[in-house]
Amino acid sequence: MNKPNLHTVLSPKLLDIYDVENSIVVIIDVFRATSTIATALYNGANKIIPVDDVAKCIALGNATPNSITAGERDGKVIEGLQYGNSPTDYPESFIKGKTLVLTTTNGTKLLQMALNKNASNVITGSFPNLSAVCNYLKQQNKNVFLGCSAWKDRFNIEDTLFAGAVIDQIKDYFEIHCDSSLMAYEMYQLHKNDLKTYIKSLTHWHRLAQYGLEKDMEYCVSIDVANVLPLYKDGALYI
Amino acid sequence: MNKPNLHTVLSPKLLDIYDVENSIVVIIDVFRATSTIATALYNGANKIIPVDDVAKCIALGNATPNSITAGERDGKVIEGLQYGNSPTDYPESFIKGKTLVLTTTNGTKLLQMALNKNASNVITGSFPNLSAVCNYLKQQNKNVFLGCSAWKDRFNIEDTLFAGAVIDQIKDYFEIHCDSSLMAYEMYQLHKNDLKTYIKSLTHWHRLAQYGLEKDMEYCVSIDVANVLPLYKDGALYI
Repeated sequence: MNKPNLHTVLSPKLLDIYDVENSIVVIIDVFRATSTIATALYNGANKIIPVDDVAKCIALGNATPNSITAGERDGKVIEGLQYGNSPTDYPESFIKGKTLVLTTTNGTKLLQMALNKNASNVITGSFPNLSAVCNYLKQQNKNVFLGCSAWKDRFNIEDTLFAGAVIDQIKDYFEIHCDSSLMAYEMYQLHKNDLKTYIKSLTHWHRLAQYGLEKDMEYCVSIDVANVLPLYKDGALYI
Repeated sequence: MNKPNLHTVLSPKLLDIYDVENSIVVIIDVFRATSTIATALYNGANKIIPVDDVAKCIALGNATPNSITAGERDGKVIEGLQYGNSPTDYPESFIKGKTLVLTTTNGTKLLQMALNKNASNVITGSFPNLSAVCNYLKQQNKNVFLGCSAWKDRFNIEDTLFAGAVIDQIKDYFEIHCDSSLMAYEMYQLHKNDLKTYIKSLTHWHRLAQYGLEKDMEYCVSIDVANVLPLYKDGALYI
């Protein structure tokens, strides 16, 4: 039997090179959207509604019972919203049973693009839910696109490292003829034993550390600490 | 004094994220356009006119005294043109004093984009002219964009490795806050001592090896064997 194909997409701007119809797209936004999504669902959130716009976030928050709104710009909660983007904002004692309406820019944009291009399944991936993502991909027998959300379309290494971590676990189940995937895999091999140190050299570390978010970022490269599978359906992410 | 900035652009599709006005853009197309350009100029070609279209290539060939036309698709000379894309097609005994009108797809497209975005200087880079490129960039005191031509907009590792080789030589002269550059540098460190073996794992190797172009590709990762600086001016590349 032929194995399905796997590709890595290094920026949302590169997604339209590929035909993702009938494929699984994994949305990756390590710092911090998809790490926060896994964590909130792991801690019992009912569902997460990702939106790309603050006004939409407020409107949906008002329309949804037992919901909270969240989003950050430059390390601060956006005016009009209630909470931030940090995974530590969502412990079980707070988030259990609630709906989280979350504004993100890079991750939500890529998710919407994947839906517009008729991906059959959209899930979110991050180090906190690495194994759940890998187990799912191994079971589906479909083509896979590992979609890095990047930052304002610029390539970033942390999303690429997560793609490499997935490839490390599932490469025997897929045909992989893709230099992006080979590079991601090699970068992960190079740094898998010192992720928490290595991330300090990345552009996002420097951008987010100025807001005191170092602990957040260290959490975001912690493997399987919120090991659930967020699956997109009818406008929201559920497990 | 502030150092100028250096960025690496991993695909032509990512160029429009950046403002390249008044900057130097290095066009990189390791397999094989920019390697062939360096080689033909090193061997005495008068100039090289890069064009993106076969009809234009033929017309310019007819209009230019002492010129030859060249271009390949799928490993064969394109019908209506005279020669191929291989650096070995252009020894001194053949090319000296001639104008080469060269059809390429990925490299020419990126070059045209850089001109449209008002880059102040456009040069071409490849392993055969690595040091000439680095020496030039060190002297100019301008912002630099290392532009990977990719393949049909898909990221490739060989262009990235060349960007890494440049960064390896000039990093002390530039401010570099760019994950693409950091990744390129690390990939080059990882493979600089086994380039001729490592390239056999790349997608382009597999594509071009089916046309018997293995020796070409090995030449294209040979450092400083055609060490001249192709500089674009008024429609052509000169040294």
